[in-house]
Amino acid sequence: MELWYTERQTPHVGITCQVKETICTRKTPYQELAIIDTFQFGKMLVLDGMVQATEVDEFVYHEMITHVPLNTHPHPQDVLVIGGGDGGTIREILKHREVSRAVLVEIDKEVVEACKEYFPHLSRGLEEERVEVLFEDGLKHIKSRENAYDVILVDSTEPVGPAVGLFTREFYQDIYQALKPQGILVAQTESPFFNGDLIRSVYKRISSTFPLTRLYLGSIPTYPSGLWSFTLGSKEHDPLKAGKIKKTLDTRYYNQEIHHSAFMLPGFVRDLMEED
Amino acid sequence: MELWYTERQTPHVGITCQVKETICTRKTPYQELAIIDTFQFGKMLVLDGMVQATEVDEFVYHEMITHVPLNTHPHPQDVLVIGGGDGGTIREILKHREVSRAVLVEIDKEVVEACKEYFPHLSRGLEEERVEVLFEDGLKHIKSRENAYDVILVDSTEPVGPAVGLFTREFYQDIYQALKPQGILVAQTESPFFNGDLIRSVYKRISSTFPLTRLYLGSIPTYPSGLWSFTLGSKEHDPLKAGKIKKTLDTRYYNQEIHHSAFMLPGFVRDLMEED
Repeated sequence: MELWYTERQTPHVGITCQVKETICTRKTPYQELAIIDTFQFGKMLVLDGMVQATEVDEFVYHEMITHVPLNTHPHPQDVLVIGGGDGGTIREILKHREVSRAVLVEIDKEVVEACKEYFPHLSRGLEEERVEVLFEDGLKHIKSRENAYDVILVDSTEPVGPAVGLFTREFYQDIYQALKPQGILVAQTESPFFNGDLIRSVYKRISSTFPLTRLYLGSIPTYPSGLWSFTLGSKEHDPLKAGKIKKTLDTRYYNQEIHHSAFMLPGFVRDLMEED
Repeated sequence: MELWYTERQTPHVGITCQVKETICTRKTPYQELAIIDTFQFGKMLVLDGMVQATEVDEFVYHEMITHVPLNTHPHPQDVLVIGGGDGGTIREILKHREVSRAVLVEIDKEVVEACKEYFPHLSRGLEEERVEVLFEDGLKHIKSRENAYDVILVDSTEPVGPAVGLFTREFYQDIYQALKPQGILVAQTESPFFNGDLIRSVYKRISSTFPLTRLYLGSIPTYPSGLWSFTLGSKEHDPLKAGKIKKTLDTRYYNQEIHHSAFMLPGFVRDLMEED
């Protein structure tokens, strides 16, 4: 018998993967969690029917959400991740030695627990001394912080279910308050091919709050359309002026050249930022 | 009833698209040809079960295979396309006014005929005066030419069936002979995520023939993994030294910045060129 897992990435298009084994499926208080083992992409974390991370291509997303801002900020010490319960973003943050405190705020404890059990390669950093894991609502955490973080990464699921509030203007304003004077925000902002409206509105919201806003891209095969966007808001530092990247990191996607070229946008993506 | 078309892009992963209508299916002397209308990507040309072009995302592939070499060559006049029966590459070539002759060598006449009927947006250039359409084997055409073209574009299907010979060392050597002294070759070379071995071997073959070889990338949602590679072989001119792009072209993906950033490769892609 052949078993195939199909995600409808939009109402009209999907990705389908041959499955070796269903490892676990759970209903958590927040979402439906599944871990499956696939032939093409290895183990796969699926939340509410949407692929979040796979063993084979997770490196792209986690490297790109992390190293672009951490190599732009001149001395990132306190870093916050909102969402990101799989631990992949924390793992990348820990590659920066000057980071003294990496805080993960994840609303769904069961995501962290399942990833600790089945994705040690992703979650291994969560036990480190520099890491603090809080199981709470990212919106509330951010509201009660001021001048607390150098870099904040919004490593959220899609803007449905528990993550809806993580795409609002109010949230970005709260993040601005929670950031120190040289602070940088990066949020994952979906596919330029399929989610142009979302990208356009988030870009507007962030740029109405932060003096500098830039969009950058990375290629992730298991995410809708294969092309993914990240929106960066910065109080002071421009990633394109970061010059020579200061550290040699152990990475497979991100490098000195990608740090700059990821911001070079195809015409139709640039248009998203310019329309009305 | 919902109708879905699924392409297995590898034995273990596929793309699935909801279909409005099957427009035509034919068995040509060379391959199985189908044109379907999909909700997400509009009309779609499918050869031997593999998506070749869709109305919604064809611009990326056709712009990237064409404008990178044509803006690198200082005065491209004679341009050859091998394959590319849908006409999209010819349409892009014709945007360069200095091109006086664009030759399409397509083995399968029925592809051209079907695209003229159902994809006028792609094939409209094929009737222009500067264009010559030859229904013959690209391998043979190239063997009998010397010092004939400024730019040759290998716009082939996957390296199975009729296109197998278009990925061999001998073919690239014949192309070298068919090019003028400042000539440039670009070949489509599949996905870095799924076809690393092919990219590695084509890169070796082209670089053993041409003094300068470079790989570049573009994001195409309906192609396997969403990330696609092109390999460029050049007798003299370096695309990275092309400086300011000389023409303002009517494009939606390609632009001055993409011309350079497309050559900036993620670490795992760079590794394909360096291994053994």
